[in-house]
Amino acid sequence: MTTARPELKIDGLIAELLALGQISEAEPPVVTRVVFGEADLRARAFVKSLCEASGLKVREDAVGNTFARWEGSEPALAPIGTGSHIDAIPNAGLYDGCVGVLGGLEAIRVLGKLGFKPRRSIELVIFTAEEPTRFGIGCLGSRMMAGLLTPEQALALRDKEGRGLEGWRAQAGFKGPLNSVAASRGRFHQFVELHIEQGPLLEQEGTDVGLVTHIAAPASQRITIEGEGGHAGGKLMPGRKDALTAAAELILAVESAAKSTGAVDTVGTVGICDVFPGAVNSVPSRVLITTDVRDIDGARRDGVLASLASAYDEISARRGVKITTELVNADPPATCDPAIVSALERSAIAAGKTYRKMVARAYHDSSFVAFIAPVAMLFIPCRGGVSHRPDEYASPEWIGGGVHVLSRTLAELAS
Amino acid sequence: MTTARPELKIDGLIAELLALGQISEAEPPVVTRVVFGEADLRARAFVKSLCEASGLKVREDAVGNTFARWEGSEPALAPIGTGSHIDAIPNAGLYDGCVGVLGGLEAIRVLGKLGFKPRRSIELVIFTAEEPTRFGIGCLGSRMMAGLLTPEQALALRDKEGRGLEGWRAQAGFKGPLNSVAASRGRFHQFVELHIEQGPLLEQEGTDVGLVTHIAAPASQRITIEGEGGHAGGKLMPGRKDALTAAAELILAVESAAKSTGAVDTVGTVGICDVFPGAVNSVPSRVLITTDVRDIDGARRDGVLASLASAYDEISARRGVKITTELVNADPPATCDPAIVSALERSAIAAGKTYRKMVARAYHDSSFVAFIAPVAMLFIPCRGGVSHRPDEYASPEWIGGGVHVLSRTLAELAS
Repeated sequence: MTTARPELKIDGLIAELLALGQISEAEPPVVTRVVFGEADLRARAFVKSLCEASGLKVREDAVGNTFARWEGSEPALAPIGTGSHIDAIPNAGLYDGCVGVLGGLEAIRVLGKLGFKPRRSIELVIFTAEEPTRFGIGCLGSRMMAGLLTPEQALALRDKEGRGLEGWRAQAGFKGPLNSVAASRGRFHQFVELHIEQGPLLEQEGTDVGLVTHIAAPASQRITIEGEGGHAGGKLMPGRKDALTAAAELILAVESAAKSTGAVDTVGTVGICDVFPGAVNSVPSRVLITTDVRDIDGARRDGVLASLASAYDEISARRGVKITTELVNADPPATCDPAIVSALERSAIAAGKTYRKMVARAYHDSSFVAFIAPVAMLFIPCRGGVSHRPDEYASPEWIGGGVHVLSRTLAELAS
Repeated sequence: MTTARPELKIDGLIAELLALGQISEAEPPVVTRVVFGEADLRARAFVKSLCEASGLKVREDAVGNTFARWEGSEPALAPIGTGSHIDAIPNAGLYDGCVGVLGGLEAIRVLGKLGFKPRRSIELVIFTAEEPTRFGIGCLGSRMMAGLLTPEQALALRDKEGRGLEGWRAQAGFKGPLNSVAASRGRFHQFVELHIEQGPLLEQEGTDVGLVTHIAAPASQRITIEGEGGHAGGKLMPGRKDALTAAAELILAVESAAKSTGAVDTVGTVGICDVFPGAVNSVPSRVLITTDVRDIDGARRDGVLASLASAYDEISARRGVKITTELVNADPPATCDPAIVSALERSAIAAGKTYRKMVARAYHDSSFVAFIAPVAMLFIPCRGGVSHRPDEYASPEWIGGGVHVLSRTLAELAS
């Protein structure tokens, strides 16, 4: 593992990625694979068969998290973990998640071909339902593994038709007590996830890989603003309690609160704004908005939320509207382990790849694995920063660079 | 016509209103009568039968405007007009429009019973499609009568299924060239419309009737704001072109522009706000809003629109979003004829009714009749200012007061 700049031949990996993309509920190249749906199950079978063909031993837990293990020479030691997810939101693309799973497998195969013998076992993980499509909650598998979603909470989850996790996992063939999913600290010695950036930075800079130092996480709220409706002609301005003008102030408050920290890592977004009754000549009586506030610094994010709560109170009092907030989630930001980041850095240098340290602004399974193990993430560029769309794209060179750095890192960590 | 305070017996009228309310596409008491639909046609037949039973001569024009005429002793003179509409938006109530039609008929019957002989003929008018439900444009019949919607424009109208006016009116049995609908100035000597207030003022004050001096009218725009979407985590605040935060500024600009005139009669409303793609973790790329700006003073209203255009330009330039405005309509406010308002005032005094002068903030068929004849409107209270809802309500006393004042007014105008 000492020669610089040996470019990997990854034709096989690219072919596997394309083949995985053919397994979709939608017409390829559009990828839709909702957890426990028919395409998700076929995709799982495909990836398992690749793992088994590579000599890995595959095990599944009660919620479908899948572990493909390359046994080390000291199998009693906690393993090194790598991996991601293969479920995909509706109308997604080929690379999100899948690069981390199939790229992780490729890294393991590369090491095997080079004659590397791991001391610690290496486990490739395919997490169940990183995407929130089916049950409305992201990172289902890793969240349960980290013990942050209890079996009771998991069993209470429902899809849009009211069908629960229990029925879905049974149909998918996953059995056993859900309380066996949670793992304790030490389940992995270290964990590293390869992923496309989902942002434009690496491509814009022409940098080969990103070494993630922090993973941001969102706090999301659903906010209902209740005012007083009426005819747009009949309701005079002084007497109005217009739910939409109040909502407009909330929307701008989210923007300025996010900007006010002065930190580039704070972002705040209102992505949904539903207006009732929603007629050109009706004063809106009720508006529903959602807010999404993210930061890599949990305390700073919570500070933004607190200042927004005050702003909402002021708007409510001044405009005479009722504002109800419901916290949908407030997932924790994660800090990556400096030792793994250093290993990634050494590997990038050894592989002759340009790199930069950066933060992950979307959250990932690693955000939850971080509760039971030291984690880090390795980013590769994606074209235009686009993800979650059919035109999502990472070039074979970018993927090859990531796999190269990952394989060196796994070798170092597992030695 | 000289005795003050003779309370009218209007049990028959109330029974007719209730009977008309039974003719609905929805389950009574919910009233839905979309123009040229089955319920609208049955309602027309019912009202025509009442008119004919009262000795009026009924005629329909090519678009279904219906004229029930009480011939005067000098039939060559231009008639006095009264009336309103009987179509109803989905989920409406019993009184909007119908009080003006059946109340107008009752006023005529009252005069007949009193032995009054009109010099000028009196025509009760039922206008086609005051509500915009079917074809997206309000006051279809009166608008065409005023020549403000040409036959070509009318033929280009389409319902949601793409079906045009021509097919609908043929199915409803209305024939003849559409260019025969427009009437010239002098078609009516004077026109007066009885209507529920659709606002809370009269009920709150305990005033019997409102004498309308001005009829406000809306200018409506559809505004598209196009920015740049992206992931709520990945898109940093400084680089954003968020269509929704820009829309929020537009929404607040409409509010403050309406307030800035200092006139209570200026109102501005954003009633629709559609966000794309509309996901909690997506920066909105496109937002559609509608604006509705009304005033009784057309120049002042246009001033508000002009100042808003500047505000939109400023927001567009500062935020780097594209703002496209489309004028949906800019109907003219109407000023009521002082001579008719004076006649209404004398009639209210003679009838022993309390009254106030006021403006109409919703627009009405009279807004368009005003282009071909002097008009005025007579308002009665409605409970809670509520209209366009199943719980819309005007008490028999309120209705009786309106009919009483209207009958005296018609008698004076037709003498």
